Amino acid sequence: MRNIQLIIEYDGTNYCGWQIQKNGVTIQEEICRAIKQVTKQEANLIGSGRTDAGVHALAQSANFKTLSTIPTNKIPVALNSLLPKDIRITNAIEKSMEFHSRYSALGKIYQYRIINNEYGSALDWHRCLHVRHKLNVEKMKRGAELFIGTHDFTAFSRENTSVVNKVRTIFQSQIEVKGDELVFRIHGNGFLYNMVRVIVGTLIEVGQGRIEAESIPSIIASKDREKAGITAPAYGLYLSEVLY
Amino acid sequence: MRNIQLIIEYDGTNYCGWQIQKNGVTIQEEICRAIKQVTKQEANLIGSGRTDAGVHALAQSANFKTLSTIPTNKIPVALNSLLPKDIRITNAIEKSMEFHSRYSALGKIYQYRIINNEYGSALDWHRCLHVRHKLNVEKMKRGAELFIGTHDFTAFSRENTSVVNKVRTIFQSQIEVKGDELVFRIHGNGFLYNMVRVIVGTLIEVGQGRIEAESIPSIIASKDREKAGITAPAYGLYLSEVLY
Repeated sequence: MRNIQLIIEYDGTNYCGWQIQKNGVTIQEEICRAIKQVTKQEANLIGSGRTDAGVHALAQSANFKTLSTIPTNKIPVALNSLLPKDIRITNAIEKSMEFHSRYSALGKIYQYRIINNEYGSALDWHRCLHVRHKLNVEKMKRGAELFIGTHDFTAFSRENTSVVNKVRTIFQSQIEVKGDELVFRIHGNGFLYNMVRVIVGTLIEVGQGRIEAESIPSIIASKDREKAGITAPAYGLYLSEVLY
Repeated sequence: MRNIQLIIEYDGTNYCGWQIQKNGVTIQEEICRAIKQVTKQEANLIGSGRTDAGVHALAQSANFKTLSTIPTNKIPVALNSLLPKDIRITNAIEKSMEFHSRYSALGKIYQYRIINNEYGSALDWHRCLHVRHKLNVEKMKRGAELFIGTHDFTAFSRENTSVVNKVRTIFQSQIEVKGDELVFRIHGNGFLYNMVRVIVGTLIEVGQGRIEAESIPSIIASKDREKAGITAPAYGLYLSEVLY
């Protein structure tokens, strides 16, 4: 038996997210089907975590155990030949049997792309959020830094989730400007459901002057979802790295 | 009467090219419909040239004459509110009545994106050509330079076109490497039908070792389409600028 880690890039536009479900095609399902064709065995593919419908990944991580003897370095080509073009296996690595994509993860990095101009982007309209009115980027940068540290992020998570411990540590949270585009990058030891999207929505409202950057610590302390900003749409979000 | 130039960004994926035709939706048609709604008049929208089905534009140029009194700086917002998201008017400029998007053009710049790795790109698979086997970029760079100058490009054009004068001047022709991606950039005073795509196809064959870079001058001199390389697919090609 071998334990194979896959690194996966995907465009989430045409999928109902990562996790297998009844009501639509998912990325996990597509990859499981390809693994079954290649290995002639059912695979239990464990992702580092779910991504919502429409969310993209530059390097999602998943693993499965297999009795197949296919050389590890042939796995990406074999799977890619069966997968749709908007899902690509960029690497396969043999790991110890203990490795678990979700439980072994030490952290994750997400990116969120915002295009801030009058007209949007014809080429990337489903890959970044278009905000038409000029955002105050300096305020957003100040706000982004205030998420760094260990906090209870209840105020930045979708309510009624079953997760009990809502304390997470953010190591990096910053905004880079590339022409008309703002790229928000956040690195944490883990994220609650919708957490990155609510943080981004809050920072957008900071950039619009609706929320003061300096009020972010008190929004965190309130543990009140109502105090934070909107949930930014899924299609601007990218899971860019899972750290082990 | 005013003469309005539009600068247009589009994702060509879902269109049958620029030019209005019977058998499918085109970019020109979508923009004409929006102009009619905004100005309440039929518009004769003149593009700098056609782009084929699937070809993208970062800055196509087109112009139309109108009696409408709408302020020029309001035109992009008005048109964009009516256009699909994969077509964006990025600017509108009032020009002299003599300005003609096609006849006034002094040159054009095209780009072609090639992704050269084992697996392709999940996020950009319909925006760049995937070449799996490693290309010899140094040879391609040498080959690219050999297109610079004034030549009869008959060998690099689709046969049986009605254009009589096939002499064009290439000012710049170069390949940049960005990670796994090669970006070919070509600036000329004009291009024959399919010319950029045949040049790219030829350079790919140079990178594969099937055509010698040094044979490009003799391929040009032969005026024989059979001697040049394949026609690279439309979806990697971008009209990036029209120069006046």
